[in-house]
Amino acid sequence: MVSSNAQSPAPRALENGGDVVISIDAMGGDRGPSAVVAGIAESADKNPEIRFIVHGNEAELNRLIAKKRGLAERCDVRHADGVVTMDDKPSQVVRKGEGSSMWSAVESVRQGEATVAVSCGNTGALMALSMIRLRKLPGVSRPAIACLWPSKSAQGFNIMLDAGADIRAEPGDLLQYAMMGASYARNGLDIDRPRVGLLNVGTEEHKGRSELKEAHELITQAAEAGDFDYLGFVEGGDLPSDRVDVIVTDGFTGNIALKTGEGTAKLVGELLREAFRNSFMSKFAAVLAMTSLKRLQKRIDPRRVNGGVFLGLNGTVVKSHGSADATGISAAIKLAFQLAKSGFQERLAARVAQGVGVTEQHDEDGAEPKNEVGP
Amino acid sequence: MVSSNAQSPAPRALENGGDVVISIDAMGGDRGPSAVVAGIAESADKNPEIRFIVHGNEAELNRLIAKKRGLAERCDVRHADGVVTMDDKPSQVVRKGEGSSMWSAVESVRQGEATVAVSCGNTGALMALSMIRLRKLPGVSRPAIACLWPSKSAQGFNIMLDAGADIRAEPGDLLQYAMMGASYARNGLDIDRPRVGLLNVGTEEHKGRSELKEAHELITQAAEAGDFDYLGFVEGGDLPSDRVDVIVTDGFTGNIALKTGEGTAKLVGELLREAFRNSFMSKFAAVLAMTSLKRLQKRIDPRRVNGGVFLGLNGTVVKSHGSADATGISAAIKLAFQLAKSGFQERLAARVAQGVGVTEQHDEDGAEPKNEVGP
Repeated sequence: MVSSNAQSPAPRALENGGDVVISIDAMGGDRGPSAVVAGIAESADKNPEIRFIVHGNEAELNRLIAKKRGLAERCDVRHADGVVTMDDKPSQVVRKGEGSSMWSAVESVRQGEATVAVSCGNTGALMALSMIRLRKLPGVSRPAIACLWPSKSAQGFNIMLDAGADIRAEPGDLLQYAMMGASYARNGLDIDRPRVGLLNVGTEEHKGRSELKEAHELITQAAEAGDFDYLGFVEGGDLPSDRVDVIVTDGFTGNIALKTGEGTAKLVGELLREAFRNSFMSKFAAVLAMTSLKRLQKRIDPRRVNGGVFLGLNGTVVKSHGSADATGISAAIKLAFQLAKSGFQERLAARVAQGVGVTEQHDEDGAEPKNEVGP
Repeated sequence: MVSSNAQSPAPRALENGGDVVISIDAMGGDRGPSAVVAGIAESADKNPEIRFIVHGNEAELNRLIAKKRGLAERCDVRHADGVVTMDDKPSQVVRKGEGSSMWSAVESVRQGEATVAVSCGNTGALMALSMIRLRKLPGVSRPAIACLWPSKSAQGFNIMLDAGADIRAEPGDLLQYAMMGASYARNGLDIDRPRVGLLNVGTEEHKGRSELKEAHELITQAAEAGDFDYLGFVEGGDLPSDRVDVIVTDGFTGNIALKTGEGTAKLVGELLREAFRNSFMSKFAAVLAMTSLKRLQKRIDPRRVNGGVFLGLNGTVVKSHGSADATGISAAIKLAFQLAKSGFQERLAARVAQGVGVTEQHDEDGAEPKNEVGP
């Protein structure tokens, strides 16, 4: 089934008075459309400027949306029969996924109806569909997934890319990740002059693979034009540190680092809970410490740093965690909104163009937006 | 300066009545020889079967050792003038390091005076020296560093290799890491039939780089002869899990994962301390929960899992963390002792030989030792 909006470009009818339109795939997550609609409702409550195009089973979505007061008038539901599952292979989805809610959600960005698409579906399929429908930005050979990493930085997290879009990266790709990551840090996290590091097994210049040394040279040359501070090589221990804002690596290493970090934080959390269950005294202490522990949990809660952003395409796509609940989905929508508001897509495209001809131009992407997205 | 024992093979004079002799580089750590001697004293107290050959500044070491009751008669001090610093490049150390305490410590293993060498010095230099002096085991092209990873397993940690000996690994190297890691798990952690996994960005067989698919085939074929269960691909999140005992990866990825895990655990620990400092109530709770928190800290204390083991050489070398204190050094010595006692070096060599001709033989490395190390 092809969703109606896939057929012909629709006008930006929904974007009244500067509202930002976000396109949402309501079907692909582990918790189904009710969690997604609950996340939409949470975001809608907090932010009156967002409108939504919601893709999936029309009857079910209308029923879920009707339950939330005031939500129906801010949502445009688009029927899609198909659902991309977590087990679907990306290649199959590209060939046969046209009737799916994921396809339809990406299509709304392609058609210009929405500024950013959000999906909790299968990452590989979402990237493959986004590549095929939105196409890569001119000059980009490998798009990347940028993720947020809880850290000691003032902003509370660092950006790491590529978190797993492509298991390979040439030196030129790593340069583009640096440019794109810096642009994301400026527009998504409000960091004027991001500090960028290249992930390696040591900080000395002679360390690491030859492609990293080459990338090191390229990024050093591009830093001034790219308006970022290049710190050189950083190590795994710097990912959660406050020394660096953007960490650049290939998607294989990035994915392993991401899952290692998640696994470690989870282990410590479990051991902590066990420790507090251990005796009457410690149970009592846990009750007393509740507020502090909740504050800690909030700080490292993966739901609050939910949202991998696909960079390097003609359109912005935010990948929410598959198991995200309403809080997680609302965090992903908030990120999508922030990026849409900042005119991120246009700025990113300008940065990439700059990276292609490295020091050719030096525009003011850190200053006021030139092309605000939406009318 | 060449230490005396480097000149001619010495008899195993120290190994009386089944004692195990450990060779210790007392100089290279961040905390200097006093921390190392304190660690030796701790180990000596706990374990009457160990004797030590201690390498470094003779006068200083004799003075430090004399302060610990009963330690002098269990230590043989070997004077070495040179100290390898953390900034020395491995290539320089190989050329000019002959008078150093590190060189001398490795030499004691080469000469057969000691079964295992322990050093807190510069990792790269220690590996380079060990390679040049001990030489690689026949059939090994890349030695590996195996580290212990705190985990939910019954034994409390998993083994990961290579943690950073070599940034590259061919499929054949990964196969040998699997064989060597399984042998280490049996002899170092008493796991009869280790579960081995190959680190990748997903568990499906089609995922990852082509060399990983090739290694996957090789390890699948070798598992039966190697007496281990091969689980196929595992992910970063499995490193601290109880699904797997030995995780195999190349040294680049392994080093990044290791430092990422350490950094994440450190961040969570710091945030936890902050949380408990936050209010009077939480400070009070922290006092009540002290026992539980200490138990947790002990569980994930990096000092207690201190000791990277160099695998694939004609002799066993344990690398202690550079910043290790007495507790950390004592943990590394304990590991060295366990490996020496189990006849690990001979068993490992047999396993590697088996890996070379893959399914040729099927010896009983899990059963009683055939060649107990030492008389």
